[in-house]
Amino acid sequence: MTKQKATNVTWQDGEVSRQDRFTILNQRGATIWFTGLSGSGKSTIAVALEQALYRIGKLSYRLDGDNVRLGINKNLGFSEEDRKENIRRIGEVAKLFGDAGVISLSSFISPYKADRDEVRELHENAGLEFIEVHVDCSLAVAEERDPKGLYKKARAGEIKNFTGIDDPYEAPASPEIHLHTDQTTVEQEVQIILDHLADNGFIVPPHVDEAAAL
Amino acid sequence: MTKQKATNVTWQDGEVSRQDRFTILNQRGATIWFTGLSGSGKSTIAVALEQALYRIGKLSYRLDGDNVRLGINKNLGFSEEDRKENIRRIGEVAKLFGDAGVISLSSFISPYKADRDEVRELHENAGLEFIEVHVDCSLAVAEERDPKGLYKKARAGEIKNFTGIDDPYEAPASPEIHLHTDQTTVEQEVQIILDHLADNGFIVPPHVDEAAAL
Repeated sequence: MTKQKATNVTWQDGEVSRQDRFTILNQRGATIWFTGLSGSGKSTIAVALEQALYRIGKLSYRLDGDNVRLGINKNLGFSEEDRKENIRRIGEVAKLFGDAGVISLSSFISPYKADRDEVRELHENAGLEFIEVHVDCSLAVAEERDPKGLYKKARAGEIKNFTGIDDPYEAPASPEIHLHTDQTTVEQEVQIILDHLADNGFIVPPHVDEAAAL
Repeated sequence: MTKQKATNVTWQDGEVSRQDRFTILNQRGATIWFTGLSGSGKSTIAVALEQALYRIGKLSYRLDGDNVRLGINKNLGFSEEDRKENIRRIGEVAKLFGDAGVISLSSFISPYKADRDEVRELHENAGLEFIEVHVDCSLAVAEERDPKGLYKKARAGEIKNFTGIDDPYEAPASPEIHLHTDQTTVEQEVQIILDHLADNGFIVPPHVDEAAAL
C-alpha cells in the first residue's frame, strides 16, 4: 500500500490492531462464559447483562443455542464427540469476537471441565480474557424451576444423557465469578459481573448517575 | 426479570436488538465477502479497507486464513467436502458478526458459486447484507504477482487443485462490487467500497475533511 503522507489522523501502515478496535469501542473484548445446570439462570443473566451493558454503551453479543446450534453448529448432533466439537467451535467464535473487541456472552451448560479448560486455553494463548462464570444452584432448585420442562422429560426417560440427571456436571474449581442463583436476584448477579468487568478494566465504570439508574 | 420503573434511559424488557447494537456502533453490520484468484488483491484491499474504516471510527474485522483456518476450521482439510464446510462455517461466523453490528471482511478465494450463494442465502434469510466483491484480475497478472509463490509451486505440480491452474474459478455473475485490480489502485478500490457502504447506509459518509484525508 502506498505510504501516506504525514497527517494528523491515525493512519498507520499495516493492520488495525486489537488495541485499535478496543479504542474505537472504548471497551476491551472478552469472553464471558456462563456454565451451569439447565435452569440455573445462565440465559436470564446473559440477557439482563446484555441490557445493562447496552445502557452504558457497551457492545456485547450473546452466543446461545438459538444462533449457534442452528447456525455454525447445525451439522453437529449430541454424541460425545459432537458435544465436544460444539463447545470447541463456540470457543473459537468467542475468541474471534473478543479479538474484534466485543464482549461475548456464551450460555451453554458446558458440563465438562476439560472442554471449558480447552476454551480457556484457546483464549489465553491468544492473549484474550476468559471469564468463567459458574451459574450455580442446587439441582433441586433447577429442577423445580424447569423452565423448558426438560427435567420432567429427563426423569421420564424421554431425554437421555441429561446433565444432572443421568450425565454429570463438573463444576469449575476456580471460576472467575461464582454466582449462587438461589440466593441472589438477577439484578445482583448482573451487578457482580459489571463490577468484575469494571474492576478489571474491560469497561469504564458507569458514571455515578448511570450507576444509580441501574 | 423485574420490570423497571419508567426512567429516561433506554432500558427495555427482553433482548437487546440488532438495531440497538447498530445504534451503539453508529453503523450497520454487514458482510463484505471478497472473492477472487490467489494474488488478485483480496487481502491487500481488506487490510486497506479496515484502515480506512478505522479512520472514520467504524468497527470492522477481517476473517482470513490466519484466524480461521488455524482456529474454528483447524479440523478441516482440503477435500472438496472440507473446502465446502470451510466456507460454510466462515459464512456462519460472518453472519454472527453482522448481527453483532460488525462489518466483517472475509478474504478467501471461495472459487465456487454454489458455496458463495449458500453464504448469501444464510445472510438474506437472517435479514443481513451480503456484499460480494469480485476482486478480479487476469490469471496472467495474478500469476505474475504470485506474492506467496504458490502459482510457481502449482505449475511445478507441487500443489494440486490450485484455483486457476488445475481447479476452476467460478466468477460471480452479479456481485455487488466488481473491482479490476489490474486497472485501479488500492486507494481507488477502497474508495469504491466506502462509497458503496455510504450510499447504502452502512456507514455515515465521512465528513468532507475526513474524506479529503483519505
